[in-house]
Amino acid sequence: MRNIEDCTIGITGLGLMGGAIAKALRTQCGVTQERLLACDKDSETLNAAFKTELIGRGYDTGGAGEMLALCDIVFLCLNPSSILRFLDQWKDSFKNGCLITDIAGTKESIAAAAEKFCAYRKNAASSSVSASTFMDGGIDFIPGHPMAGAEKGGFKNSDLCNFNLKNYILTPISCNKPENMELLQKLIRKMGFSRVTEVTPQEHDRKIAFTSQLCHVIAAALIDCENDMEITRFGGGSFEDLTRIAMLNAPMWTELFTENRAALLARIDQFEKSLDDLKTLISGDNTEALEKRLTLVRDRRTAMSNK
Amino acid sequence: MRNIEDCTIGITGLGLMGGAIAKALRTQCGVTQERLLACDKDSETLNAAFKTELIGRGYDTGGAGEMLALCDIVFLCLNPSSILRFLDQWKDSFKNGCLITDIAGTKESIAAAAEKFCAYRKNAASSSVSASTFMDGGIDFIPGHPMAGAEKGGFKNSDLCNFNLKNYILTPISCNKPENMELLQKLIRKMGFSRVTEVTPQEHDRKIAFTSQLCHVIAAALIDCENDMEITRFGGGSFEDLTRIAMLNAPMWTELFTENRAALLARIDQFEKSLDDLKTLISGDNTEALEKRLTLVRDRRTAMSNK
Repeated sequence: MRNIEDCTIGITGLGLMGGAIAKALRTQCGVTQERLLACDKDSETLNAAFKTELIGRGYDTGGAGEMLALCDIVFLCLNPSSILRFLDQWKDSFKNGCLITDIAGTKESIAAAAEKFCAYRKNAASSSVSASTFMDGGIDFIPGHPMAGAEKGGFKNSDLCNFNLKNYILTPISCNKPENMELLQKLIRKMGFSRVTEVTPQEHDRKIAFTSQLCHVIAAALIDCENDMEITRFGGGSFEDLTRIAMLNAPMWTELFTENRAALLARIDQFEKSLDDLKTLISGDNTEALEKRLTLVRDRRTAMSNK
Repeated sequence: MRNIEDCTIGITGLGLMGGAIAKALRTQCGVTQERLLACDKDSETLNAAFKTELIGRGYDTGGAGEMLALCDIVFLCLNPSSILRFLDQWKDSFKNGCLITDIAGTKESIAAAAEKFCAYRKNAASSSVSASTFMDGGIDFIPGHPMAGAEKGGFKNSDLCNFNLKNYILTPISCNKPENMELLQKLIRKMGFSRVTEVTPQEHDRKIAFTSQLCHVIAAALIDCENDMEITRFGGGSFEDLTRIAMLNAPMWTELFTENRAALLARIDQFEKSLDDLKTLISGDNTEALEKRLTLVRDRRTAMSNK
C-alpha cells in the first residue's frame, strides 16, 4: 500500500465538499501543501485556497490535464453530470496507477462510467509499448459518497461540513484493487468519518433516495405550501429541523432528483401511503389505534438510533 | 406589578417542560427554593426535585389544593385534557388574585376554559361576603405555549430543553390584566426566551398545526415507511434532522393531533398538494421547471430565516 504522505492529491471542484475534503486532508491526514493540488473554474477560490496555504497550486479548468498528470489520488468533487463529462474529457490525462474517487450523491451512473473508464485505461495500458506503464496496471476508481454536506454551498462555506463521526458510503466496482480500497478507507477514517459502508451502486441509490432525496423533497414541499414569511415566530425546533435543507442548491438537487428518478418516485409513493394512513387515523375517532401506530414509530426510530 | 421575588410559584406536572420551567425559574429568575412548589403524581420525581434543592416542597395529586392556596403564580404543565380536568377539579382552590398560565400545545380549548374559569371565580369573588377577596379581583389566566420541547420526555430529561433565544406564544383572553401580562412576559424573557408573540388561540392553533403538528406527522410517516433498522448508515444529517421528533411521546401527540384535528388535516392536505406538484415535476422531463420551483423554495426559506 502506498503511503498517503508520498502521494500527490488532486481535487477537481473546490466547492463546499471539495473544499472540506481539502481541509481535512491537510489538517487530519498529514498531506502537505505542496502535495495538494486543486482544479476549479473559479480563480478567486483557487487564489484564496493558495493564499491560506491550503493547496500548493491551483489549475483552471483548461489546466486540469496538467494537474492530473501529477496526481496519485484524485477526488472528483463535482455534480454527477460534470463528473461524467470531466472523465470523458480528460480520460487520457490521469496518471497511470492513480486512484480516483468521487463524491456524487447518486452512484449508479458514476459506477458504470468508472467501470468503463478503468477498462478503457487498462486496454490503453496493455496496448502501450511501455512495459512500465503496463506494470502500473492502469487506473483504479472507487466511487464514494461522503454523507456530510451543508445547506450552504461553495468553498467559502466548506468549514460548515463536519466530517466527525459521519457516514461514508463506498460502491466498489469489479476492478477495484484491495490495496487501493484499504488506502481510501484509511484516508476516509483519518478525515473523521467513523462508519464506512460498502454497498452496490444500486443499493446506495435506493437507500439515498430515502435518507437524502426524499427528505429534501419533503423539506421543499413544506416550504412550498407556506407563505407566511414570519412563520419562524411559531417554530419550536421541529419546523427549523425539517426545513433547514430546503435552503438547497437548486441545480445540484434537480440533477440528483432526476438522476435517481425511479428510486425517488417509489420512495415518495411509500411515504405518501404512510402519510395517508396517519391522516386517516387522525381524522377518525379511534385514538387508540393512532396512539398505537405512533408508539410503533417511536420504538422503531429509537431502535434505529442505536445501530 | 408584583415583584417576582415576592411570589410563591407552583408547578403542576413536573415533567419535561414543568421541570425545565422550574429550573429556569430557580437559575434565571431569582426564585428561591422555598418559593417554588410542585405537584406531581410521581413521588420519586418530587423527592428528586426536593433533594436537588429545586423545589421547597412537593405535593402529590391529592395535595394540589394545599399547594394552590399558597401560590401567586401557577404554571399548569400538563397535557391539554389534564389541564381541563385539573382546572375543574381544583377550581375553588386557587388563591384569589393569582396568575395562572399553561404550556399546552393547543390553545383554543384551553383559552375557552380559561375564560370560563376566570368568569366563574370573578362571580364567586363578587358574591363572597369577604370584601378583601373581592378586592383581589378574582383570578387571571394567560394561556401560553413555550416553543422549546425535546424528543425525550419526563423530569429526568428536562435539562434537554433549552429556552435560550426560543419562541414563546401567548394567547391572551378578554379578562387578562395588563400588569399580569407584563409580569408573565418579564418572567418568560428572564427564562431565556427571546421572541414572545401574542396571537388569538385560533391563530396559534392554525400556525402550530403547520410548524409543529404537521412536522411530527411527517416525521412519523417517514419512519412508518422504512423498515431497514440499519438505515442510519446511510444518513447524512437530513434523515436524522427530519426524524428526530419521530421519537415522540405517543399519548401526548395523539391528544394534540386529535385536539387540533381540523387545522392539522387542512395542513396535511396543503402539504400533500405541494408534494404532488414536486412529484409531477420530478417525474417529468422539464428539469428547468423543477429547478425554478426549488429555487423559489430556497429563496423563501432563506427569507424566513431572516425574520
